[in-house]
Amino acid sequence: MFEYTLHATDGKARAGTFITPHGAIETPVFMPVGTHSTVKTLTFDQVRQTQAQIVLGNAYHLYLRPGHEMVERAGGLHGWTGWEKPILTDSGGFQVFSLTRLRKITEEGVNFRDPITGQSHFINPEKSMAIQNALGADIIMAFDECPPYPATHEYAKNSMEMTHRWLERCFNAHARKHDQALFPIVQGSTYEDLRFESAAFARQFDAHGFAIGGVSVGESKEWVYKVVEFTAPLLPENKPRYLMGIGTPEDLLDGINLGIDMFDCVNPTRVARHGSFFKMMGRRNIKNAEFENDFGPLDEGCDCYTCNHHHVAYVRHLIKIKEATGATLLSIHNVRFLIRLVEDARKAILAGNFETFYNLHRPRFINPSKEVKPVG
Amino acid sequence: MFEYTLHATDGKARAGTFITPHGAIETPVFMPVGTHSTVKTLTFDQVRQTQAQIVLGNAYHLYLRPGHEMVERAGGLHGWTGWEKPILTDSGGFQVFSLTRLRKITEEGVNFRDPITGQSHFINPEKSMAIQNALGADIIMAFDECPPYPATHEYAKNSMEMTHRWLERCFNAHARKHDQALFPIVQGSTYEDLRFESAAFARQFDAHGFAIGGVSVGESKEWVYKVVEFTAPLLPENKPRYLMGIGTPEDLLDGINLGIDMFDCVNPTRVARHGSFFKMMGRRNIKNAEFENDFGPLDEGCDCYTCNHHHVAYVRHLIKIKEATGATLLSIHNVRFLIRLVEDARKAILAGNFETFYNLHRPRFINPSKEVKPVG
Repeated sequence: MFEYTLHATDGKARAGTFITPHGAIETPVFMPVGTHSTVKTLTFDQVRQTQAQIVLGNAYHLYLRPGHEMVERAGGLHGWTGWEKPILTDSGGFQVFSLTRLRKITEEGVNFRDPITGQSHFINPEKSMAIQNALGADIIMAFDECPPYPATHEYAKNSMEMTHRWLERCFNAHARKHDQALFPIVQGSTYEDLRFESAAFARQFDAHGFAIGGVSVGESKEWVYKVVEFTAPLLPENKPRYLMGIGTPEDLLDGINLGIDMFDCVNPTRVARHGSFFKMMGRRNIKNAEFENDFGPLDEGCDCYTCNHHHVAYVRHLIKIKEATGATLLSIHNVRFLIRLVEDARKAILAGNFETFYNLHRPRFINPSKEVKPVG
Repeated sequence: MFEYTLHATDGKARAGTFITPHGAIETPVFMPVGTHSTVKTLTFDQVRQTQAQIVLGNAYHLYLRPGHEMVERAGGLHGWTGWEKPILTDSGGFQVFSLTRLRKITEEGVNFRDPITGQSHFINPEKSMAIQNALGADIIMAFDECPPYPATHEYAKNSMEMTHRWLERCFNAHARKHDQALFPIVQGSTYEDLRFESAAFARQFDAHGFAIGGVSVGESKEWVYKVVEFTAPLLPENKPRYLMGIGTPEDLLDGINLGIDMFDCVNPTRVARHGSFFKMMGRRNIKNAEFENDFGPLDEGCDCYTCNHHHVAYVRHLIKIKEATGATLLSIHNVRFLIRLVEDARKAILAGNFETFYNLHRPRFINPSKEVKPVG
């Protein structure tokens, strides 16, 4: 039920199609994040209008609330949310490891406390698979340890080796291999030898796709892309490559340029709630005085609902007075912007002029460091 | 540009059509409130999907933020919001008088402080007309004094008489009589003699419609409908009658039953944000345990987006974890519910069986007193 076809490469950039049980995904692809079973401030109708091909859910959050058994009773995430296209769930690893003071990691798994209720929970590879099997996403992720940055070589190596043992346990426990693709996650922090070792280990599994994890956890953007640069070529050419948790405009351009096929990030909806929005000429904040009397669209040429129906001054007013609809309108625009940017990148790859495309668009986005924090 | 046609009456209930510059409105009609130039938590596309025929804006709020000059520069409220159907603005009177400790009323007008910035402002009938002319709604309201409840007969009479003098000033100042219908507001508190006097005064004006104001300001529901019962028949039969600020399901049924044609209320979106939703069998709160495993729609037979796409358990989850999308989904349902209730009432009037309709639906809604507070 899964098949990846690589249609064209242009430099390291790749254009492909990944077929899943709920439909084909044209890659490269940006995947909006529906953390708690909704993309924040949007209805799924609005998500559909952004032409999203796949959305994410977080196993950790869904396990705690409403519980994976509840989602399963509703027919899995597709029945629960009403979203009929592909879904990917992460394993919960990243969120659990972010609970620095509330969790304890052992070889067996992770004990942690729900930060809201204080209740104790235990997740290990087998439990993560049971949760993700119940949630029923098309693509599910291995339960890994995500080491912080900076990590010593020794810590990173030990952590990676445990992640590898957990990866075997995940594949052994995964009960829906026929309709859920389990992606291994390559770890190894910023160490090239470890990333090499981790990619080699992951490649042993007959997986439908591979992910690069443990990036954007505090290291500089330069480090993120050094890691991607030496890790991406270590992954199978005939399988999609997913760079986890990354998704500003510049991230997408850089990632595609280095051979990444799949991206996710809460960035477009999170920054929207604070008034930031994307233009082809760069990132802006709508609260700036320059937009007070701007009766044009957020971005010339954008085909999103917001740009088709509203001018900047109106959206700015809603954001300034903290009306929820303002966050919705900017989120629609930002998500559609990223999806269109990636669609355009794909067209450029297929046309063989990605380098020109990259050189035109990349300099317009300078990433403010506050926007690259790890997200959960 | 304005014309009201009364198609049928059934008891006191009326079915008509009111033509305005931005389209025809079939009455009775429920008008969702877009206080700050948006219906809370909804986009206008979502408002359109509820089949709303007209929305409200608040002159007071729009005057303060973003300012009526800004709205005028955008082409009035239609250009500002992108909503292409009829709009009604209230005069600001109700909101100003609600600022009990921040305002001072004289014959000339009202001095008040912006509760957010502390800045001083002055609104009088002429200023209210200038603001509403700039906002450019199809229907605009007279600037009146809305006395509190309880009010002595003397206070109510003096207040009413000033409202009458202000009404003359409004008609004299109104600069867009050709494309904006100015509705007088009948006051007089709970006193039948004063309501009679006020209706007689208002009828002197060649207005396209008439409103009943000063209800639901603290008095019991019984008093609201006593006032409506003796005031509605005093208004011209060949003009629409608007009962201001009223709009729970039972209010709509009772108001229609007493010959009211137009209603507005923030109730459906406000209660949605707290988890309340309407069913044909009555009002419910989605947080109740009974809905935890309810995989049916919010209301059987409802044709709203939410009922078509989502089950109760999912919406309940979003409301419980305070996801903004939950409030959006419930607001869509509640607004559509009221609009459909009024559509069905209109069909019953045209079919001559409104009494049966009323007797079937009215007992299902018992109004919790917390839901009848005055709103602004």
